[in-house]
Amino acid sequence: MKINRYVLSDDAKEAKKDYIDRHSAFVHCDAKAEKGKKFKVKVQVGDEYMHPDVPDHYIAWVQIWNGEKMLAQTTFIEGAFANEPANVEVDFYIVPTKNMKLTAMAFCSKHGLWQSDEVAVEVN
Amino acid sequence: MKINRYVLSDDAKEAKKDYIDRHSAFVHCDAKAEKGKKFKVKVQVGDEYMHPDVPDHYIAWVQIWNGEKMLAQTTFIEGAFANEPANVEVDFYIVPTKNMKLTAMAFCSKHGLWQSDEVAVEVN
Amino acid sequence: MKINRYVLSDDAKEAKKDYIDRHSAFVHCDAKAEKGKKFKVKVQVGDEYMHPDVPDHYIAWVQIWNGEKMLAQTTFIEGAFANEPANVEVDFYIVPTKNMKLTAMAFCSKHGLWQSDEVAVEVN
Amino acid sequence: MKINRYVLSDDAKEAKKDYIDRHSAFVHCDAKAEKGKKFKVKVQVGDEYMHPDVPDHYIAWVQIWNGEKMLAQTTFIEGAFANEPANVEVDFYIVPTKNMKLTAMAFCSKHGLWQSDEVAVEVN
Repeated sequence: MKINRYVLSDDAKEAKKDYIDRHSAFVHCDAKAEKGKKFKVKVQVGDEYMHPDVPDHYIAWVQIWNGEKMLAQTTFIEGAFANEPANVEVDFYIVPTKNMKLTAMAFCSKHGLWQSDEVAVEVN
Repeated sequence: MKINRYVLSDDAKEAKKDYIDRHSAFVHCDAKAEKGKKFKVKVQVGDEYMHPDVPDHYIAWVQIWNGEKMLAQTTFIEGAFANEPANVEVDFYIVPTKNMKLTAMAFCSKHGLWQSDEVAVEVN
Repeated sequence: MKINRYVLSDDAKEAKKDYIDRHSAFVHCDAKAEKGKKFKVKVQVGDEYMHPDVPDHYIAWVQIWNGEKMLAQTTFIEGAFANEPANVEVDFYIVPTKNMKLTAMAFCSKHGLWQSDEVAVEVN
Repeated sequence: MKINRYVLSDDAKEAKKDYIDRHSAFVHCDAKAEKGKKFKVKVQVGDEYMHPDVPDHYIAWVQIWNGEKMLAQTTFIEGAFANEPANVEVDFYIVPTKNMKLTAMAFCSKHGLWQSDEVAVEVN
C-alpha cells in the first residue's frame, strides 16, 4: 500500500498538479486552541481543483488523526455531492487536552490513499 | 432492535428528559437550499444536555440520511471529546438536486440507536 | 427513514420476491454458544437471489447487532465483488457472555436499509 | 502519522515481541484463487499473543486492501469480545478478477496503525 502526498517539486509533478491537488487532503483549523473547549477542524479534499463524485470514482472516506490516534472517520456514499465535481468537506469538532499534531487522510475509490501535511495546534 | 426518538409527552417521560435529550440526534440546516450548490448540514447529539465521552459510554457514530438513502456516516473513537461531556457535532456538506427530507441517526455505545426528527429542505 | 423486512405474505409481495430476497440480510450461526469462547456469526445479504455490485448500486455496509448494541459494521467499496452479482457475506467473530438476540442490518446504496429477522443464541 | 510493522530484527525488538505481535495484522487466505469466484480472506490481529478488548484499549477497526484499493473495513464497538483478550478476526469475501496483493491494516485505539505483510494471490 502506498500513501500519496501533495508534493510538487519538479516539472513532472507540476504537470500532474490537478491530479495531485484534487486528491490531497487538507486540515484547516486555528493555530491555537483552548484546553477543554470544543475546537473545529475542517478536513477538505482538494484545494484549487475539485474531485469527481461519480459512482465509480469518488472520495469514499476521510479521517482526522492526532499523532498516531485516529479521532474520527467520515464515510460517504457516492452521490452525496450530486455526482458533480466538488471539494469534499467535513467539519469535525474535537476537544483538545494538549498540543496536537493533526493529519487528515482521504481515500479515493480509484486512486488510493492520500495524507495531508501535519498541522500543529498549540493548546493552552 | 429498537429505534429511540425524542418524545416527551407525559410525566414519566418528562422525568427522563435529560436521558432522552442527551442521546437525541438533531439536524440543523437552512430550510432552503440551492440546487447544485454545496449545502451545510450540522448533526448534533443532545440539545440542552451533554452526553458523556468516556471509554465505555460515548457516541460511537452519527449518520445523515436523505429519505431512504444514507449520505454519510461519521464514526468516532472515544476520547475525541477529551472524555468530557459534550454535544457531539459534525458538519456534513452535501449537494442537493431536489427537495430533501433529512434525518440523523446517532448510536450510543451503551444506549443504542436514536433517530432525529425529519427536516424538510426545499431545493430550488 | 424506512426499515425494510423480508416479508412475503401476499401475492403482491410474492411478485417482488427476487427484489426482497436479494436485499434482505440474514444471520447464520449456531443456536448455542459457549460463554467466553469466540463465536462465528455470518451475515449474508440475499438468500436465493444475488445482489448487483455495480458502482451505483451495491451493498454499502452490513452491521451485526446484539439487542440494542451494535457490535461491528463492515463497509464495502463497490467492486469488492468484481462488479458481478453476489451474496455479500462477512463472518464476524464475537465473544458472548449471556444469551444473545442477533440482528443484521444491510444498506443498499439504491434501495435503503434492510433488517434481518432476529436470531436467538443460547449461551452457557 | 506512523505506520507500524511486524519486524523483529534485533534484541530490542525481541524484547517487545508480545507488544508487536498482538497488534500486528495478518492476512490468511489461499495462495491461489479462481477468477470470478467468491474468495475468503481472513484478517486476524495478533498471532501468538492476544490483544485486550477493554473500553479504552481495543482494536477499533481492520481494513483489507488490494494494492492501493481498499475493499472493505470492519469497525468494532468495544465489548464485541466480552472485554477479554482475543485475536480480533474477520472473514471477508471478495471476488478477484486478476492477481492480487492483499494487505491488512489494523487500528488500536491506544497504539495506532499497524500494517500486515503483503500477501500475493495468483488468480486464474
